[in-house]
Amino acid sequence: MMIDCGEGTQLAMRRMRLKFVRLNHIFISHLHGDHVLGLPGLLSTMALQGKTGRVTIHTFPEGIEILQNVVNFFCREPGYEIVFEPVSPEGGLVYEDNALTVTAFPLYHRVPCVGYIFREKEKLRHLDGDMVKYLDIPVSKLHGIKMGEDYTTPDGVVIPNSRITHDADPSVSYAYCSDTQYDERVAKAVAGVDTVFHEATYIDADRVKARGRGHSTASEAATVALKAGARQLIIGHYSKSYVSEDQHLAEASAIFPNTLLANEGLMVDLL
Amino acid sequence: MMIDCGEGTQLAMRRMRLKFVRLNHIFISHLHGDHVLGLPGLLSTMALQGKTGRVTIHTFPEGIEILQNVVNFFCREPGYEIVFEPVSPEGGLVYEDNALTVTAFPLYHRVPCVGYIFREKEKLRHLDGDMVKYLDIPVSKLHGIKMGEDYTTPDGVVIPNSRITHDADPSVSYAYCSDTQYDERVAKAVAGVDTVFHEATYIDADRVKARGRGHSTASEAATVALKAGARQLIIGHYSKSYVSEDQHLAEASAIFPNTLLANEGLMVDLL
Repeated sequence: MMIDCGEGTQLAMRRMRLKFVRLNHIFISHLHGDHVLGLPGLLSTMALQGKTGRVTIHTFPEGIEILQNVVNFFCREPGYEIVFEPVSPEGGLVYEDNALTVTAFPLYHRVPCVGYIFREKEKLRHLDGDMVKYLDIPVSKLHGIKMGEDYTTPDGVVIPNSRITHDADPSVSYAYCSDTQYDERVAKAVAGVDTVFHEATYIDADRVKARGRGHSTASEAATVALKAGARQLIIGHYSKSYVSEDQHLAEASAIFPNTLLANEGLMVDLL
Repeated sequence: MMIDCGEGTQLAMRRMRLKFVRLNHIFISHLHGDHVLGLPGLLSTMALQGKTGRVTIHTFPEGIEILQNVVNFFCREPGYEIVFEPVSPEGGLVYEDNALTVTAFPLYHRVPCVGYIFREKEKLRHLDGDMVKYLDIPVSKLHGIKMGEDYTTPDGVVIPNSRITHDADPSVSYAYCSDTQYDERVAKAVAGVDTVFHEATYIDADRVKARGRGHSTASEAATVALKAGARQLIIGHYSKSYVSEDQHLAEASAIFPNTLLANEGLMVDLL
């Protein structure tokens, strides 16, 4: 899965040795060129690399028409299916499978824009292999026990779930918030998410510029993470007018200590 | 002026510190994504950089419709004029000013494709300042003399042009041939051009592949330069399947010694 696809995305994927053919879903936040113009080239390269199956691009209805035309023109006979799925600027569930949901929520930029939250579903509990063997539990019961059910022996003895299972692996969640100005509604939307990416285009000294252009400062990104109760914050989308991002990191960390600077190629373990 | 505009062109321009606002004409060879998909992003960046005046994009009529739509969508209110000028796949004069002509000519690829020849017009001869003063030539006569006219003094004495002028600076010419398979008609089209860029996607060992995909080998590029009577050859557009281009250079140089390998950022003096 990928969020947004600016010009040069395929070059970045090459440098990181990510496999083009494994990409199945692309979620677009908004229809500014720096978030979508890498799409036709990426989809063409995927065709050259022998992608099969389907790629689904999730974007606003007005983007579907223009992107569909470009893709049809520059990526003829791709050899795999390219599907566009409409996303509402008001947000809502955009993807669900057995393990994961992806929901969109409104951001506050110069044009309609959404963020995305990726949430792993609750995972199954781990069986205690020794207990399962000792009690000789029938296979048909195992899925229910992994879901948390107790086990009743043929003699009618109830074995509480906690004696035959261990805790499930934690389910992780990730929210992507770019591009947006600071807004408390963003903090509400991502409340309880473990890892939050929030744009931090500017530093405090350029707060007025940030507001005028529909962007945030690093402190504002940190305030969103703090109010949302996040466990880690990743900031990024820096204005090209800064030589380094040290000041962004200092200002964000003062409010939310567990802040990481995003830069090309960064890999993050979700907590 | 720029020929073709693949994804990442604006990044390459930034690295080379080329000024976006000075670009006025873009000549497109053919409508494959790797030759045009950098256009919407580049035009948007030019708007951000304060470009004024006009940018003219020269391309086939079928490309104008699709590119115009994309540019309208992603580059709203650019602050400068974006004009599309149709180019015929059969070629012909596409640009002319006081100093230069640009002509298109057919290449032989999987889709319609043209190359471009840039020719400086003949330049004016340099006046010999001492002679002009000594003979006290009227200003009204000077342009004619720079064009090669003799000068007749008020007494009726004819002073041959060679005594009052020095040779003009040489006019240079450059031809761009990509993408194309080997074809003698290309050599004829670029006959007499000083510096020829010719694609060299493959090496001799992959000659069959080259033909099947509408591309050339390095030897074929060199053969075109030789037949055209060029003074220098630049090869490029290498297949990503090679680790280095040493073999391309060796094979081309064996046929046409004055061959250069094009790589990103190469700057060449036209002879």
